[in-house]
Amino acid sequence: METLMNDTEDQPLSAQASVQEQLRSLEEEVKEYKDKYLRLLAEIDNTRKRMQKEKQDMTRFAIDNALGELLGPIDNMENALKFTERMSEEVRNWAQGFQMILGQFRDALGNHGVVPFHSEGTAFDPNWHHAIETEETDKIPEGTIIQEFVKGYKSGDRTIRPARVKVAIAPGKNKGPTNPIENEQ
Amino acid sequence: METLMNDTEDQPLSAQASVQEQLRSLEEEVKEYKDKYLRLLAEIDNTRKRMQKEKQDMTRFAIDNALGELLGPIDNMENALKFTERMSEEVRNWAQGFQMILGQFRDALGNHGVVPFHSEGTAFDPNWHHAIETEETDKIPEGTIIQEFVKGYKSGDRTIRPARVKVAIAPGKNKGPTNPIENEQ
Repeated sequence: METLMNDTEDQPLSAQASVQEQLRSLEEEVKEYKDKYLRLLAEIDNTRKRMQKEKQDMTRFAIDNALGELLGPIDNMENALKFTERMSEEVRNWAQGFQMILGQFRDALGNHGVVPFHSEGTAFDPNWHHAIETEETDKIPEGTIIQEFVKGYKSGDRTIRPARVKVAIAPGKNKGPTNPIENEQ
Repeated sequence: METLMNDTEDQPLSAQASVQEQLRSLEEEVKEYKDKYLRLLAEIDNTRKRMQKEKQDMTRFAIDNALGELLGPIDNMENALKFTERMSEEVRNWAQGFQMILGQFRDALGNHGVVPFHSEGTAFDPNWHHAIETEETDKIPEGTIIQEFVKGYKSGDRTIRPARVKVAIAPGKNKGPTNPIENEQ
Protein backbone atom coordinates (compact mmCIF):
# COMPACT_ATOMS: atom_id res chain seq x y z
CA MET A 1 0.00 0.00 0.00
CA GLU A 2 2.78 2.37 0.96
CA THR A 3 4.78 1.59 -2.18
CA LEU A 4 1.76 2.25 -4.29
CA MET A 5 1.13 5.67 -2.78
CA ASN A 6 4.78 6.77 -2.94
CA ASP A 7 5.38 5.56 -6.48
CA THR A 8 2.43 7.17 -8.13
CA GLU A 9 3.40 10.67 -9.05
CA ASP A 10 0.84 11.12 -11.83
CA GLN A 11 -1.96 9.79 -9.58
CA PRO A 12 -2.93 12.39 -6.96
CA LEU A 13 -3.39 11.05 -3.45
CA SER A 14 -6.92 12.42 -3.28
CA ALA A 15 -7.86 10.53 -6.46
CA GLN A 16 -6.54 7.30 -5.00
CA ALA A 17 -8.40 7.92 -1.80
CA SER A 18 -11.56 8.56 -3.77
CA VAL A 19 -11.10 5.31 -5.70
CA GLN A 20 -10.69 3.45 -2.44
CA GLU A 21 -13.80 5.22 -1.21
CA GLN A 22 -15.68 4.15 -4.31
CA LEU A 23 -14.60 0.56 -3.89
CA ARG A 24 -15.69 0.51 -0.29
CA SER A 25 -18.98 2.12 -1.11
CA LEU A 26 -19.65 -0.33 -3.92
CA GLU A 27 -18.70 -3.26 -1.75
CA GLU A 28 -21.16 -2.01 0.83
CA GLU A 29 -23.82 -1.62 -1.79
CA VAL A 30 -23.26 -5.17 -3.01
CA LYS A 31 -23.52 -6.45 0.54
CA GLU A 32 -26.68 -4.43 1.12
CA TYR A 33 -28.50 -5.70 -1.97
CA LYS A 34 -27.27 -9.21 -1.39
CA ASP A 35 -28.69 -9.08 2.15
CA LYS A 36 -31.95 -7.58 0.98
CA TYR A 37 -32.18 -10.22 -1.73
CA LEU A 38 -31.53 -13.10 0.64
CA ARG A 39 -33.96 -11.78 3.24
CA LEU A 40 -36.62 -11.46 0.58
CA LEU A 41 -35.87 -14.95 -0.67
CA ALA A 42 -36.53 -16.27 2.83
CA GLU A 43 -39.65 -14.14 3.11
CA ILE A 44 -41.14 -15.33 -0.16
CA ASP A 45 -40.69 -18.90 1.03
CA ASN A 46 -42.34 -18.14 4.37
CA THR A 47 -45.16 -16.27 2.64
CA ARG A 48 -45.81 -19.25 0.40
CA LYS A 49 -45.88 -21.66 3.31
CA ARG A 50 -48.03 -19.37 5.44
CA MET A 51 -50.55 -18.76 2.67
CA GLN A 52 -50.67 -22.46 1.83
CA LYS A 53 -51.55 -23.14 5.47
CA GLU A 54 -54.09 -20.28 5.48
CA LYS A 55 -55.65 -21.67 2.32
CA GLN A 56 -56.16 -25.07 3.93
CA ASP A 57 -57.46 -23.59 7.19
CA MET A 58 -59.85 -21.27 5.39
CA THR A 59 -61.18 -24.08 3.22
CA ARG A 60 -61.68 -26.31 6.25
CA PHE A 61 -63.35 -23.46 8.13
CA ALA A 62 -65.62 -22.57 5.19
CA ILE A 63 -66.78 -26.17 4.74
CA ASP A 64 -67.37 -26.62 8.48
CA ASN A 65 -69.44 -23.45 8.61
CA ALA A 66 -71.48 -24.21 5.50
CA LEU A 67 -72.24 -27.74 6.74
CA GLY A 68 -72.93 -26.41 10.24
CA GLU A 69 -75.99 -24.64 8.82
CA LEU A 70 -77.53 -28.04 8.10
CA LEU A 71 -77.59 -29.03 11.76
CA GLY A 72 -80.86 -27.15 12.38
CA PRO A 73 -82.89 -28.94 9.67
CA ILE A 74 -81.21 -32.27 10.59
CA ASP A 75 -82.30 -31.81 14.23
CA ASN A 76 -85.83 -30.97 13.09
CA MET A 77 -85.95 -34.04 10.88
CA GLU A 78 -84.71 -36.28 13.72
CA ASN A 79 -87.33 -34.86 16.09
CA ALA A 80 -90.15 -35.17 13.54
CA LEU A 81 -89.22 -38.80 12.89
CA LYS A 82 -89.27 -39.58 16.62
CA PHE A 83 -92.97 -38.63 16.67
CA THR A 84 -93.85 -41.19 13.98
CA GLU A 85 -93.27 -44.01 16.48
CA ARG A 86 -96.67 -43.25 18.01
CA MET A 87 -98.50 -42.90 14.71
CA SER A 88 -100.37 -45.17 12.27
CA GLU A 89 -98.62 -47.94 10.36
CA GLU A 90 -99.05 -45.97 7.12
CA VAL A 91 -97.07 -43.07 8.58
CA ARG A 92 -94.48 -45.35 10.14
CA ASN A 93 -93.86 -47.13 6.82
CA TRP A 94 -93.62 -43.87 5.05
CA ALA A 95 -91.24 -42.50 7.69
CA GLN A 96 -88.74 -45.27 6.87
CA GLY A 97 -87.96 -43.56 3.58
CA PHE A 98 -87.31 -40.31 5.43
CA GLN A 99 -85.11 -42.10 7.93
CA MET A 100 -82.96 -43.17 4.96
CA ILE A 101 -82.86 -39.64 3.58
CA LEU A 102 -81.82 -38.37 7.02
CA GLY A 103 -78.97 -40.89 6.90
CA GLN A 104 -77.89 -39.44 3.53
CA PHE A 105 -77.76 -35.93 5.00
CA ARG A 106 -75.72 -37.22 7.94
CA ASP A 107 -73.37 -38.98 5.50
CA ALA A 108 -72.81 -35.74 3.57
CA LEU A 109 -71.61 -34.17 6.85
CA GLY A 110 -69.64 -37.25 7.87
CA ASN A 111 -67.81 -37.33 4.50
CA HIS A 112 -66.29 -33.98 5.51
CA GLY A 113 -65.48 -35.07 9.06
CA VAL A 114 -68.43 -33.26 10.65
CA VAL A 115 -69.79 -35.77 13.17
CA PRO A 116 -71.92 -35.73 16.34
CA PHE A 117 -70.21 -36.46 19.66
CA HIS A 118 -71.54 -38.26 22.70
CA SER A 119 -72.14 -36.14 25.83
CA GLU A 120 -74.34 -38.00 28.36
CA GLY A 121 -72.33 -39.45 31.25
CA THR A 122 -69.18 -37.51 30.34
CA ALA A 123 -67.67 -34.62 32.34
CA PHE A 124 -68.88 -31.14 31.50
CA ASP A 125 -66.36 -29.22 29.35
CA PRO A 126 -67.18 -25.61 28.35
CA ASN A 127 -65.39 -26.16 25.03
CA TRP A 128 -67.87 -28.86 24.03
CA HIS A 129 -70.98 -28.26 26.14
CA HIS A 130 -73.40 -25.51 27.02
CA ALA A 131 -75.11 -26.10 30.37
CA ILE A 132 -78.70 -24.97 30.01
CA GLU A 133 -79.91 -26.77 33.16
CA THR A 134 -78.44 -28.14 36.38
CA GLU A 135 -79.74 -30.80 38.75
CA GLU A 136 -78.76 -31.30 42.40
CA THR A 137 -77.72 -34.87 43.01
CA ASP A 138 -75.28 -36.86 45.12
CA LYS A 139 -75.67 -40.03 43.06
CA ILE A 140 -73.15 -39.08 40.36
CA PRO A 141 -70.04 -36.89 40.49
CA GLU A 142 -70.59 -33.16 40.19
CA GLY A 143 -70.04 -31.87 36.67
CA THR A 144 -71.31 -35.05 35.02
CA ILE A 145 -73.70 -34.52 32.11
CA ILE A 146 -77.09 -36.01 33.02
CA GLN A 147 -78.99 -35.30 29.81
CA GLU A 148 -78.35 -34.02 26.31
CA PHE A 149 -81.05 -31.72 24.90
CA VAL A 150 -79.31 -30.80 21.65
CA LYS A 151 -76.63 -32.97 20.07
CA GLY A 152 -73.14 -31.52 19.76
CA TYR A 153 -71.16 -31.72 16.51
CA LYS A 154 -67.43 -31.46 15.90
CA SER A 155 -64.95 -31.50 13.04
CA GLY A 156 -61.60 -32.85 14.15
CA ASP A 157 -60.73 -30.89 17.31
CA ARG A 158 -63.08 -28.06 16.43
CA THR A 159 -66.55 -27.70 17.93
CA ILE A 160 -69.05 -27.08 15.14
CA ARG A 161 -71.89 -26.84 17.63
CA PRO A 162 -71.65 -27.36 21.39
CA ALA A 163 -74.08 -29.85 22.91
CA ARG A 164 -76.82 -28.27 25.07
CA VAL A 165 -76.93 -30.28 28.29
CA LYS A 166 -78.16 -30.72 31.87
CA VAL A 167 -75.31 -31.02 34.40
CA ALA A 168 -75.17 -32.62 37.85
CA ILE A 169 -74.24 -30.33 40.76
CA ALA A 170 -73.70 -31.14 44.44
CA PRO A 171 -76.84 -30.71 46.63
CA GLY A 172 -77.25 -27.19 48.08
CA LYS A 173 -75.10 -25.54 45.43
CA ASN A 174 -77.96 -24.60 43.15
CA LYS A 175 -78.59 -21.19 44.71
CA GLY A 176 -74.92 -20.28 45.03
CA PRO A 177 -74.06 -17.05 43.23
CA THR A 178 -70.61 -18.37 42.29
CA ASN A 179 -71.82 -21.57 40.59
CA PRO A 180 -69.13 -22.06 37.96
CA ILE A 181 -71.40 -23.94 35.60
CA GLU A 182 -74.08 -21.26 35.59
CA ASN A 183 -71.39 -18.70 34.93
CA GLU A 184 -70.35 -20.60 31.82
CA GLN A 185 -73.57 -19.70 30.08
CA MET B 1 10.86 -12.37 -5.27
CA GLU B 2 12.12 -11.23 -8.64
CA THR B 3 8.65 -11.23 -10.09
CA LEU B 4 7.47 -9.13 -7.23
CA MET B 5 10.23 -6.58 -7.91
CA ASN B 6 9.32 -6.45 -11.60
CA ASP B 7 5.70 -5.94 -10.75
CA THR B 8 6.46 -3.07 -8.50
CA GLU B 9 8.21 -1.19 -11.29
CA ASP B 10 5.14 -0.92 -13.52
CA GLN B 11 2.84 -0.71 -10.51
CA PRO B 12 0.99 2.53 -11.33
CA LEU B 13 -0.62 1.50 -14.64
CA SER B 14 -1.49 -2.09 -13.75
CA ALA B 15 -2.67 -1.09 -10.30
CA GLN B 16 -4.92 1.51 -11.82
CA ALA B 17 -6.21 -0.97 -14.35
CA SER B 18 -6.84 -3.50 -11.63
CA VAL B 19 -8.67 -0.90 -9.54
CA GLN B 20 -10.79 0.03 -12.54
CA GLU B 21 -11.44 -3.66 -13.06
CA GLN B 22 -12.48 -4.04 -9.45
CA LEU B 23 -14.78 -1.04 -9.71
CA ARG B 24 -16.44 -2.37 -12.84
CA SER B 25 -16.81 -5.80 -11.37
CA LEU B 26 -18.36 -4.41 -8.18
CA GLU B 27 -20.68 -2.16 -10.14
CA GLU B 28 -21.82 -5.16 -12.09
CA GLU B 29 -22.34 -7.11 -8.93
CA VAL B 30 -24.42 -4.27 -7.45
CA LYS B 31 -26.52 -4.16 -10.61
CA GLU B 32 -26.96 -7.90 -10.56
CA TYR B 33 -28.17 -8.09 -6.97
CA LYS B 34 -30.31 -5.00 -7.39
CA ASP B 35 -32.00 -6.64 -10.40
CA LYS B 36 -32.44 -9.92 -8.58
CA TYR B 37 -33.86 -8.06 -5.59
CA LEU B 38 -36.31 -6.04 -7.66
CA ARG B 39 -37.45 -9.06 -9.63
CA LEU B 40 -38.04 -10.95 -6.42
CA LEU B 41 -39.93 -7.99 -4.99
CA ALA B 42 -42.27 -8.10 -7.97
CA GLU B 43 -42.56 -11.85 -7.66
CA ILE B 44 -43.48 -11.80 -3.98
CA ASP B 45 -46.23 -9.32 -4.76
CA ASN B 46 -47.55 -11.48 -7.59
CA THR B 47 -47.34 -14.58 -5.41
CA ARG B 48 -49.37 -12.87 -2.69
CA LYS B 49 -52.04 -11.76 -5.14
CA ARG B 50 -52.18 -15.11 -6.88
CA MET B 51 -52.44 -17.06 -3.63
CA GLN B 52 -55.09 -14.68 -2.32
CA LYS B 53 -57.12 -15.37 -5.44
CA GLU B 54 -56.45 -19.11 -5.12
CA LYS B 55 -57.58 -19.00 -1.51
CA GLN B 56 -60.92 -17.44 -2.46
CA ASP B 57 -61.42 -19.79 -5.42
CA MET B 58 -60.57 -22.85 -3.36
CA THR B 59 -62.92 -21.81 -0.58
CA ARG B 60 -65.73 -21.19 -3.06
CA PHE B 61 -65.02 -24.49 -4.77
CA ALA B 62 -64.86 -26.42 -1.49
CA ILE B 63 -68.19 -25.00 -0.27
CA ASP B 64 -69.87 -25.65 -3.62
CA ASN B 65 -68.66 -29.24 -3.63
CA ALA B 66 -69.61 -29.94 -0.03
CA LEU B 67 -73.08 -28.49 -0.55
CA GLY B 68 -73.39 -30.30 -3.88
CA GLU B 69 -73.40 -33.57 -1.94
CA LEU B 70 -76.74 -32.56 -0.43
CA LEU B 71 -78.51 -32.46 -3.77
CA GLY B 72 -79.07 -36.23 -3.76
CA PRO B 73 -80.93 -36.35 -0.42
CA ILE B 74 -82.77 -33.10 -1.30
CA ASP B 75 -84.01 -34.70 -4.56
CA ASN B 76 -85.09 -37.80 -2.66
CA MET B 77 -86.97 -35.72 -0.12
CA GLU B 78 -88.72 -33.74 -2.85
CA ASN B 79 -89.76 -36.94 -4.62
CA ALA B 80 -90.95 -38.61 -1.40
CA LEU B 81 -93.05 -35.56 -0.55
CA LYS B 82 -94.66 -35.59 -4.00
CA PHE B 83 -96.08 -39.05 -3.20
CA THR B 84 -97.86 -37.81 -0.08
CA GLU B 85 -100.36 -35.93 -2.24
CA ARG B 86 -102.13 -39.23 -2.94
CA MET B 87 -102.06 -40.45 0.67
CA SER B 88 -104.26 -40.14 3.78
CA GLU B 89 -104.87 -36.85 5.52
CA GLU B 90 -102.73 -37.99 8.46
CA VAL B 91 -99.74 -38.45 6.17
CA ARG B 92 -100.41 -35.20 4.29
CA ASN B 93 -100.56 -33.22 7.54
CA TRP B 94 -97.43 -34.83 8.74
CA ALA B 95 -95.72 -34.16 5.40
CA GLN B 96 -96.22 -30.41 5.90
CA GLY B 97 -93.58 -30.44 8.63
CA PHE B 98 -91.17 -32.18 6.28
CA GLN B 99 -91.94 -29.68 3.53
CA MET B 100 -90.75 -26.97 5.95
CA ILE B 101 -87.60 -28.90 6.78
CA LEU B 102 -86.92 -29.33 3.06
CA GLY B 103 -87.18 -25.55 2.74
CA GLN B 104 -84.56 -25.18 5.49
CA PHE B 105 -82.15 -27.44 3.61
CA ARG B 106 -82.74 -25.44 0.43
CA ASP B 107 -82.11 -22.22 2.39
CA ALA B 108 -78.78 -23.56 3.67
CA LEU B 109 -77.73 -24.02 0.03
CA GLY B 110 -79.21 -20.71 -1.09
CA ASN B 111 -77.34 -18.82 1.67
CA HIS B 112 -74.14 -19.84 -0.12
CA GLY B 113 -75.46 -19.00 -3.57
CA VAL B 114 -76.19 -22.62 -4.57
CA VAL B 115 -79.57 -22.42 -6.28
CA PRO B 116 -81.61 -24.48 -8.77
CA PHE B 117 -82.05 -23.12 -12.27
CA HIS B 118 -85.02 -23.42 -14.60
CA SER B 119 -84.57 -25.59 -17.71
CA GLU B 120 -87.95 -26.46 -19.30
CA GLY B 121 -88.67 -24.36 -22.38
CA THR B 122 -85.11 -23.01 -22.61
CA ALA B 123 -82.54 -23.87 -25.28
CA PHE B 124 -80.33 -26.88 -24.64
CA ASP B 125 -76.80 -25.85 -23.49
CA PRO B 126 -74.24 -28.60 -22.82
CA ASN B 127 -72.73 -26.46 -20.03
CA TRP B 128 -75.98 -26.60 -18.06
CA HIS B 129 -77.88 -29.63 -19.35
CA HIS B 130 -77.38 -33.32 -19.95
CA ALA B 131 -79.72 -34.67 -22.62
CA ILE B 132 -80.83 -38.13 -21.50
CA GLU B 133 -83.77 -38.32 -23.92
CA THR B 134 -84.82 -36.73 -27.19
CA GLU B 135 -88.25 -36.37 -28.78
CA GLU B 136 -89.02 -35.75 -32.45
CA THR B 137 -91.36 -32.82 -32.84
CA ASP B 138 -92.05 -29.97 -35.22
CA LYS B 139 -94.18 -28.04 -32.72
CA ILE B 140 -91.25 -26.35 -30.93
CA PRO B 141 -87.80 -25.32 -32.16
CA GLU B 142 -85.17 -28.02 -32.23
CA GLY B 143 -82.93 -27.96 -29.16
CA THR B 144 -85.67 -26.76 -26.84
CA ILE B 145 -85.89 -28.58 -23.51
CA ILE B 146 -89.23 -30.39 -23.29
CA GLN B 147 -88.93 -31.90 -19.83
CA GLU B 148 -86.63 -31.78 -16.82
CA PHE B 149 -86.04 -35.12 -15.07
CA VAL B 150 -83.46 -33.95 -12.55
CA LYS B 151 -83.18 -30.32 -11.45
CA GLY B 152 -79.96 -28.47 -12.26
CA TYR B 153 -78.10 -26.42 -9.63
CA LYS B 154 -75.58 -23.61 -10.06
CA SER B 155 -73.45 -21.30 -7.96
CA GLY B 156 -72.83 -18.01 -9.75
CA ASP B 157 -71.66 -18.96 -13.23
CA ARG B 158 -70.62 -22.42 -12.16
CA THR B 159 -72.74 -25.53 -12.74
CA ILE B 160 -72.96 -27.48 -9.50
CA ARG B 161 -75.06 -30.15 -11.18
CA PRO B 162 -76.32 -30.11 -14.77
CA ALA B 163 -80.06 -30.65 -15.25
CA ARG B 164 -80.98 -34.00 -16.81
CA VAL B 165 -83.45 -33.25 -19.58
CA LYS B 166 -85.45 -34.36 -22.63
CA VAL B 167 -84.71 -32.30 -25.74
CA ALA B 168 -86.78 -31.60 -28.87
CA ILE B 169 -85.26 -32.67 -32.20
CA ALA B 170 -86.54 -32.20 -35.74
CA PRO B 171 -88.60 -35.18 -37.06
CA GLY B 172 -86.50 -37.83 -38.81
CA LYS B 173 -83.28 -36.83 -37.11
CA ASN B 174 -83.55 -39.35 -34.30
CA LYS B 175 -81.61 -42.10 -36.10
CA GLY B 176 -78.97 -39.79 -37.52
CA PRO B 177 -75.42 -40.80 -36.58
CA THR B 178 -74.32 -37.16 -36.38
CA ASN B 179 -76.99 -35.96 -33.96
CA PRO B 180 -75.14 -33.24 -32.08
CA ILE B 181 -77.22 -33.56 -28.93
CA GLU B 182 -76.69 -37.29 -28.61
CA ASN B 183 -73.00 -36.71 -29.05
CA GLU B 184 -72.99 -34.35 -26.08
CA GLN B 185 -73.72 -37.20 -23.74
